[in-house]
Amino acid sequence: MDDAIYRRGLMLVLSSPSGAGKTSISRELLRREPGLAMSVSATTRPKRPGETDGLDYFFVDQTEFGLRINRGEFLEHAKVFGNYYGTPRGPVEASLGEGRDVLFDIDWQGTQQIREKLAADLVTVFILPPSTAELERRLNARAQDPAHVVAQRMAQASNEMSHWPEYDYIVVNRDLDRSVAEVQSVLAAERIKRERQIGLGDFVKRLRDGR
Amino acid sequence: MDDAIYRRGLMLVLSSPSGAGKTSISRELLRREPGLAMSVSATTRPKRPGETDGLDYFFVDQTEFGLRINRGEFLEHAKVFGNYYGTPRGPVEASLGEGRDVLFDIDWQGTQQIREKLAADLVTVFILPPSTAELERRLNARAQDPAHVVAQRMAQASNEMSHWPEYDYIVVNRDLDRSVAEVQSVLAAERIKRERQIGLGDFVKRLRDGR
Repeated sequence: MDDAIYRRGLMLVLSSPSGAGKTSISRELLRREPGLAMSVSATTRPKRPGETDGLDYFFVDQTEFGLRINRGEFLEHAKVFGNYYGTPRGPVEASLGEGRDVLFDIDWQGTQQIREKLAADLVTVFILPPSTAELERRLNARAQDPAHVVAQRMAQASNEMSHWPEYDYIVVNRDLDRSVAEVQSVLAAERIKRERQIGLGDFVKRLRDGR
Repeated sequence: MDDAIYRRGLMLVLSSPSGAGKTSISRELLRREPGLAMSVSATTRPKRPGETDGLDYFFVDQTEFGLRINRGEFLEHAKVFGNYYGTPRGPVEASLGEGRDVLFDIDWQGTQQIREKLAADLVTVFILPPSTAELERRLNARAQDPAHVVAQRMAQASNEMSHWPEYDYIVVNRDLDRSVAEVQSVLAAERIKRERQIGLGDFVKRLRDGR
């Protein structure tokens, strides 16, 4: 009887300044949640050794990327360090329609663009580092970057963090396991939100009619 | 540093038609969540053997109950089978202010009354039985009630169920363990909602200032 209740998938966005631990959280979340799939972006940047087209990215040339922008085929797109990145709309809408949830690792600008298109399906989580010291430690720990690159990253992190009030949920990443569990709770709770469960009206009607 | 982030407690309301399994879910939820306390109601009904004043109910006489209504001391109150029941406002507000969450086992009328007073702190969950057959089985299984009492309960259940669209989350109680886990997810997710975490603005400001 309750097979009549189904739901659209939801778009789970994780944003954070770099160095807050978002990549580790995303990876562990995908491992624990088989019903969640990572959105695959399109990009104009060259394929690196070990990357697979359609799995890591959809690799397209600049002209093709421009045509797709004009055809409205991206939920969001941006130019980063001279390369274009975008979220193809088709695969995401197909997933949502089939009740599968999609994870997005995008920044506040991408989140704003998606919000304009599919606000009802959007659940947004912002991840904060536990302290400045920890943020600096993680940014410095990244490879052997020169000091001015680290300073630039800190400035970028500061800018990204200023957008926390645009997000539904805030995770302060003190501990990876706890942070992943918190995002899992968000996913589980959002799945049983009234407005996401389609067919509840008919289901209750049958319960009340005694059928 | 992140000790500066704190939160108000939230009011978690569970409502359902009788026979949907709410009492079992509440009991198990309280066992699993030490940070959650059941709201203790005041009532004019006589104390039964084994009940403790202040633990099961606050037992008060009819005059006292009336005075408390007039002084606005109840978050909600109702008359059920000739007895008055109400939720005292003071202990709940004290808990919320101290960041402790409070569980309420009340019906749609009580939920509406609380929503008028403390909407921002309110999280509402409606529990549905998985099928009419299961609902009837549970209502019939209750003691040795005559048929007309069972019929009356079914009518009451039907009326209660009609209010599901007023709730934030809907749990279809197919399995006790799963349903409790779903309510736990709601609690965990609501705790990290942006607007419940007080002090985040200052926390982010210090992160951005590099302090």
